[in-house]
Amino acid sequence: MPEAIADPVRPAASRAASTGNQQFLLTPGPLTTSLGVKQAMLKDWGSRDPAFIALNADIRHRLVTIAAASGGAAASGGNDFVCVPVQGSGTFAIEATLGTLVPPDGKLLVLVNGAYGERMMKIMQRLGRRATALTVAEDKTHDLGEVQSTLQGDPAITHVAAVHCETTSGILNPIEPIADQVHAEGRALIVDAMSSFGALPLDAAALSCAAVVASSNKCLEGAPGMGYAIVRQDVLAGCEGNSPSLALDLFDQWRAMEGNGQWRFTPPTHVMAAFHQALIEHEAEGGVPGRYRRYRQNCDILIEGMQKLGFRPLLPAASQAPVIVTFHMPADPRFDFKSFYDRLAALGYVIYPGKLTVAPSFRIGCIGQVMPEDMQNAVATIASVLEDMGVQDCGPASTGERA
Amino acid sequence: MPEAIADPVRPAASRAASTGNQQFLLTPGPLTTSLGVKQAMLKDWGSRDPAFIALNADIRHRLVTIAAASGGAAASGGNDFVCVPVQGSGTFAIEATLGTLVPPDGKLLVLVNGAYGERMMKIMQRLGRRATALTVAEDKTHDLGEVQSTLQGDPAITHVAAVHCETTSGILNPIEPIADQVHAEGRALIVDAMSSFGALPLDAAALSCAAVVASSNKCLEGAPGMGYAIVRQDVLAGCEGNSPSLALDLFDQWRAMEGNGQWRFTPPTHVMAAFHQALIEHEAEGGVPGRYRRYRQNCDILIEGMQKLGFRPLLPAASQAPVIVTFHMPADPRFDFKSFYDRLAALGYVIYPGKLTVAPSFRIGCIGQVMPEDMQNAVATIASVLEDMGVQDCGPASTGERA
Repeated sequence: MPEAIADPVRPAASRAASTGNQQFLLTPGPLTTSLGVKQAMLKDWGSRDPAFIALNADIRHRLVTIAAASGGAAASGGNDFVCVPVQGSGTFAIEATLGTLVPPDGKLLVLVNGAYGERMMKIMQRLGRRATALTVAEDKTHDLGEVQSTLQGDPAITHVAAVHCETTSGILNPIEPIADQVHAEGRALIVDAMSSFGALPLDAAALSCAAVVASSNKCLEGAPGMGYAIVRQDVLAGCEGNSPSLALDLFDQWRAMEGNGQWRFTPPTHVMAAFHQALIEHEAEGGVPGRYRRYRQNCDILIEGMQKLGFRPLLPAASQAPVIVTFHMPADPRFDFKSFYDRLAALGYVIYPGKLTVAPSFRIGCIGQVMPEDMQNAVATIASVLEDMGVQDCGPASTGERA
Repeated sequence: MPEAIADPVRPAASRAASTGNQQFLLTPGPLTTSLGVKQAMLKDWGSRDPAFIALNADIRHRLVTIAAASGGAAASGGNDFVCVPVQGSGTFAIEATLGTLVPPDGKLLVLVNGAYGERMMKIMQRLGRRATALTVAEDKTHDLGEVQSTLQGDPAITHVAAVHCETTSGILNPIEPIADQVHAEGRALIVDAMSSFGALPLDAAALSCAAVVASSNKCLEGAPGMGYAIVRQDVLAGCEGNSPSLALDLFDQWRAMEGNGQWRFTPPTHVMAAFHQALIEHEAEGGVPGRYRRYRQNCDILIEGMQKLGFRPLLPAASQAPVIVTFHMPADPRFDFKSFYDRLAALGYVIYPGKLTVAPSFRIGCIGQVMPEDMQNAVATIASVLEDMGVQDCGPASTGERA
């Protein structure tokens, strides 16, 4: 429930205090987490402690359940997929999944429309595994016919990797038709669902994908420091010895964890405890549909408010995920991004620079422990900062590019 | 200062409460951390936040300073070494260091006398890099003449890896003479100082080693979830492109961090904040000598107390690091380890199973936020548990093996 706002000029201060912070992180991550999530880290756990083993098992179970949010995997018995946690950022989990699932004689097709697709290509190059990219512009999704012809034209391709929500732009890639296409061509799909998992519907079984990879700190609102892959059990069972890394071997990690419920190496116990609490809070909010509803509201408030101020979002509504929104940089010479950023941060809202290669831009995130009223306050604060800076025109330099 | 002990039968309960816990973790890790360390995690940080960048820089600076604890590196300007943080457990940092420092045409000699030396061999096998092991028994240190003849006999060996304190047994390997030997033979030394860094003196520059690798959660008493390598800068500068991993590329991580002070991928912000607080507390305790003093006291109290109860430590005093102590399993049939472990855990002291291949054993750690009086209480509790179990003889089955 909304709390009394002490200072109407600085609403973030009192609102953020309820999460233990002075600022809201309107970024692609790390994000604002609840105070309850952080308080779960106020205890030390032994990694062999039966209570920790139970906590770990419950996290893995909950994640598989979320991956079957639409009921498909649950309906098929719920045992098709296993969750394998991996320490480190999401990139660690992605590298672990690619290195374990794509065998040395395999070949990966990566559907690229942003930095995270590009990163998968870099990972494959490092691992010395074959990979090819099908690249489209950062504000475009892939043409399914082109995906099909690429797969039909290169029988060496064994796996396809796709990014569900590419936070480079905030675009929502059409993962269901992509999955159907990949399935029809008899290849295995690996989904980078880093910034969508837990908020955007995704039924791993219905998608007939091999693996979904995500992290603790995006839409599930845990602390950063771990990721996980949710992998079809029969696929993972065939991956022994594939990984060119010990630390990032998903197969070994899975086998060890199935054996005694423990991690192979010292786990990030506090991060795990925070994540467990975050999953309880996710369930209390109504799971995926509940989390989606709040982020959708945040996103709508943000885009509507920013458009009223004259800002132009990069993406059309149809391809905008309610995760992070890219805005064109205003052409008005009085708009200096560094100053805009610093003023907003001082008033309690941390935004994010753009990552586009095609146009100057910045980004504002909709996810994390941010309520619709916080987003309303953020938009109002942006308006007052712009006024203070004397910026009148927030439109981009070249108009008409997306009429 | 000691606090009033409410219940003389269960001293752990009131003492551990001051750290936010119900138990003391007398293990090789994760360990008991202070309440202050855990409270540092009650805030969310943006990874681009100037305050977080400053915190990260201060951690790196403090770690290099600790690596020059005896003054050597500081005397030589203090700029010879750089600290590169790596997410994950210590094994992640070890794999990152081996994969980045030992080039594809290099060859590593690993001095093995326990599980952590063995693990480095496994890592090298996975990375597809050449490695050879010089293995001695878990309760023995290496013969320096044998190290020398191995190096002289195999000119392909470019690097040597040694474990400072091998927690498999708790043995302190003589790292200084090993370093001298490796240096004399013109090879580069990589030290796994996981369980010794911050408590046992180690002067990276005086040792003339290439790298020292450790983690946040051992003697520095932070939360688990990150490790780091302290690497000679001129060595690291020559390692571009060596790493067969993107996530675990120490060179890339270093270059990126030198560039803008930021991590390449989402950092474990809460773990970093906890680690920063842990380093402040480490300094307040008197740095390496202060921390060593307390662990030494803990270790002396433990060994003396256990010997009085009839237990036999695996190692002679000269090679016992004040980190973790291995005890032979008592021969008395009334001694059931599972029951012993469970009773101690219920009374607030979590101990650890043995990892020896040579003899049945268990281990008790001396490190973490454990004060000498806690160790005294632990020994007293062990005595009462043994009495309760009716165990009279705590000596091992075969006596005289280490007369």
